[in-house]
Amino acid sequence: MAIRLAELAVRYGCELHGDPDLEVVSVATLADAQAGNIAFLASPGYKKFLTETQATAVILNKTAAEDCQVACLVTDNPYAVYAGIAAELHPQPALVPGIHPQTSIAEGAGVPDSCEISAGVVIGRDVRLGERVYIGPNCVIGDASVVGSDTRLIANVSIYHDVHLGERCRVHAGTVIGSDGFGIAQSAQGWLKVPQLGGVRIGDDVEIGANCTIDRGAIKDTEIAAGVKLDNQVHIAHNVVIGEHTAIAGQCGISGSTQIGARCVMGGQVAISGHLVIADDVFLMGRSVVTKSISNSGTYSSVLAVEEAGKWRKLAARFKRLESMAAKLKLLERKLNSSMDGKS
Amino acid sequence: MAIRLAELAVRYGCELHGDPDLEVVSVATLADAQAGNIAFLASPGYKKFLTETQATAVILNKTAAEDCQVACLVTDNPYAVYAGIAAELHPQPALVPGIHPQTSIAEGAGVPDSCEISAGVVIGRDVRLGERVYIGPNCVIGDASVVGSDTRLIANVSIYHDVHLGERCRVHAGTVIGSDGFGIAQSAQGWLKVPQLGGVRIGDDVEIGANCTIDRGAIKDTEIAAGVKLDNQVHIAHNVVIGEHTAIAGQCGISGSTQIGARCVMGGQVAISGHLVIADDVFLMGRSVVTKSISNSGTYSSVLAVEEAGKWRKLAARFKRLESMAAKLKLLERKLNSSMDGKS
Amino acid sequence: MAIRLAELAVRYGCELHGDPDLEVVSVATLADAQAGNIAFLASPGYKKFLTETQATAVILNKTAAEDCQVACLVTDNPYAVYAGIAAELHPQPALVPGIHPQTSIAEGAGVPDSCEISAGVVIGRDVRLGERVYIGPNCVIGDASVVGSDTRLIANVSIYHDVHLGERCRVHAGTVIGSDGFGIAQSAQGWLKVPQLGGVRIGDDVEIGANCTIDRGAIKDTEIAAGVKLDNQVHIAHNVVIGEHTAIAGQCGISGSTQIGARCVMGGQVAISGHLVIADDVFLMGRSVVTKSISNSGTYSSVLAVEEAGKWRKLAARFKRLESMAAKLKLLERKLNSSMDGKS
Repeated sequence: MAIRLAELAVRYGCELHGDPDLEVVSVATLADAQAGNIAFLASPGYKKFLTETQATAVILNKTAAEDCQVACLVTDNPYAVYAGIAAELHPQPALVPGIHPQTSIAEGAGVPDSCEISAGVVIGRDVRLGERVYIGPNCVIGDASVVGSDTRLIANVSIYHDVHLGERCRVHAGTVIGSDGFGIAQSAQGWLKVPQLGGVRIGDDVEIGANCTIDRGAIKDTEIAAGVKLDNQVHIAHNVVIGEHTAIAGQCGISGSTQIGARCVMGGQVAISGHLVIADDVFLMGRSVVTKSISNSGTYSSVLAVEEAGKWRKLAARFKRLESMAAKLKLLERKLNSSMDGKS
Repeated sequence: MAIRLAELAVRYGCELHGDPDLEVVSVATLADAQAGNIAFLASPGYKKFLTETQATAVILNKTAAEDCQVACLVTDNPYAVYAGIAAELHPQPALVPGIHPQTSIAEGAGVPDSCEISAGVVIGRDVRLGERVYIGPNCVIGDASVVGSDTRLIANVSIYHDVHLGERCRVHAGTVIGSDGFGIAQSAQGWLKVPQLGGVRIGDDVEIGANCTIDRGAIKDTEIAAGVKLDNQVHIAHNVVIGEHTAIAGQCGISGSTQIGARCVMGGQVAISGHLVIADDVFLMGRSVVTKSISNSGTYSSVLAVEEAGKWRKLAARFKRLESMAAKLKLLERKLNSSMDGKS
Repeated sequence: MAIRLAELAVRYGCELHGDPDLEVVSVATLADAQAGNIAFLASPGYKKFLTETQATAVILNKTAAEDCQVACLVTDNPYAVYAGIAAELHPQPALVPGIHPQTSIAEGAGVPDSCEISAGVVIGRDVRLGERVYIGPNCVIGDASVVGSDTRLIANVSIYHDVHLGERCRVHAGTVIGSDGFGIAQSAQGWLKVPQLGGVRIGDDVEIGANCTIDRGAIKDTEIAAGVKLDNQVHIAHNVVIGEHTAIAGQCGISGSTQIGARCVMGGQVAISGHLVIADDVFLMGRSVVTKSISNSGTYSSVLAVEEAGKWRKLAARFKRLESMAAKLKLLERKLNSSMDGKS
């Protein structure tokens, strides 16, 4: 599909520099772009590629536009405009409605004709799918679960029973939703399993990466609000509540019953303890550990980055002697004060 | 199912306050409970909901009982009693014995009539299932593996060959048991694969969360003793041995050949190096790193929790200068001592 | 299969001590070995088992050979020699070429007769498999992907569209390759999905552990060079490039667009930020965090290992007061200097 720059400028509210009749057919990076490609510049680190780009057009901001030798779409948010244009030029494959013969669909499951159900899919009793749902190969959906319209499960996804997925969601391969929360009670006979009786409720427009795990609630539901985005291998424990438009990068873990606010952002491998409340608009840098509730929006960190191992070993050893260092400092303070007292 | 409080009190050894003929039919949280519900109070943080609860009965300890307006079952271990009562009121669905036609079961596999084998299951040669085993949709079981009676594999579980699973285990979706350990030997031609020839032995009453990975041993077996509980996304490397009733929270990783004692507890994202020995009854706080063996039971930690990023940046910078700080302190000490010597 | 020691000595370039006509049939640990077994000694920690071993022969280095009572193969690299001999004695099961009837293979897919395609496999349009490829039960391969000769996907593996896997690779169960990168753009309406249009290119002789996730590139491909070894639950984000023969242990996460050099080694749970460049031959100790590019080969760490919780709590509290400690030190320095100035 070819689209005229003039059309894109209007649709995405950009200022157009260059020939409005130029057409673009696909996206490319600044460095690799050829005629017919549209590229974008969103981070200063890639500015060096701008002067030599062979792209037909570039999406960029006002400042960068000055250095652009080719046509450009000028906007305050080049990455978001790029996202829209890329989706137009490269639409995801259309559904091929129908149910593959090698599937197992329980009686009482509601599967509209507009859905595409791939080979190897197993759908339980009383499942309800919305319109145009795509269930990819070898996905499993447990009894009484609901999948909203236009949602896509890619492959080998496991949805347990009583899970509600909103509309326009996308769940990547290998992800598990509705597994039992880690509820165990100590007893004289060892751990007793605490039945996990709640479900999972996931809002509209949620994207969940590959090999994530989202546990069902112990009594009430685990809840993920609309617009939330999870990267791969994220672990959401039972009864967690995540507010709208929060984005969580790879391998983060949220412990049970914690509530995360709206519009939060977490870098990778963040860990959050259970039973906490995290305010809206909290940004947690990658690998942070949160052990107490956070009531103010802002940026938080607890990362100590690598040093050469020899240097690190010394720092770690010093750290382990901080108590004696503090004691020494205190002693010195006293000595000095008494020595000065003695003098005065 | 409705159960009389009198009956529950006797069965769980609780003191009953209130009308013994009251009946409960399902569980609920203190805050949401209605007539017919039984709730529990195990952590002081939820005590505020006690006075207003609409539950028919509450499971709680002696102290809390004083503030309870409704019937209650008094016990030293409310959470364990709750676990038992919840399991009674909400039993897991009964098996529907039989083998779904869309399965592939190799010749020589032993599948008793009491088992339920779901659609999409693939079972290898010489596999032995116990009585009343449930194999959920799209699970795969490799040659010569054994699954004990009453064990349930939920969905999309991959069991390799020569894996032994005990009785009454539960393995959640997406989990992999018996994958090759990370055995590679450096050579002039790059890494050589070291064949992983051992198996995996898992005891009775083990629960394994979703998307876990448990590697087979290099020569001998990886071993997980009876009563162990693993949360989601736990990684157990080859030749690890885990003692009875140890509980490991989400995203922990145990490196090769490490031995974990009995009744240990790990918070989430703990990392343990290889070839260590961890004593019985060790509690590792979430995100701890263990690089040496631990020979005494007790609680261990290595977590530095988040601060506001600006403050953290200063602390991290100070940390990185601990060597110079220590040097400065030493110099000061010397100066002061010589100055005092000079005076005396 | 029995092999004479003389033959092994020649084939692996070892010095043979003992009867060249002795035969070995299988491997065992030093401690458990019986007649017919060959064992190895690669780490000093296991030397105590050498004097009492019942093995027919042991693979070890020159120094250890002095204490060996049985026949031995002497080499500088016992572990690598063991890897080769173990693979000879315990070859992986031969393929059983053919396509299981319970599979779904799209028209236009190229599946040579030498391949083994297991039950439950779903193969998309225009997929190309090399010779002797093994696709295990319930694996899914998306449209236009390519799998090189002699590569094996074990079970429940999900390969998206446009993924290229080299020859002699092994992909363990539950792993996902080609999932969308975590590309989201902030907008007034919440996060916009940035289409992930690149693919994944994986070289020859790559082994990928269980439940890993490797995202496709945003515009260009994610690339993993020949000879790379990934342990379980590793997460590789979009546009990452990993150099030849790099080995990455369990639960590591590499953020988007980062380039890792050749022959790097990472311990478990390492985290690397996005858009970095890591040099060749970098060794990152387990649980390290890398937030800046590393331009020199060497060993790096950022780990603080556990202490008994009471002690740790004090250290952590001291750490959090490093700023005031530094201020105190500075004040003391000034006081002392002025006091000494006053004296002189």
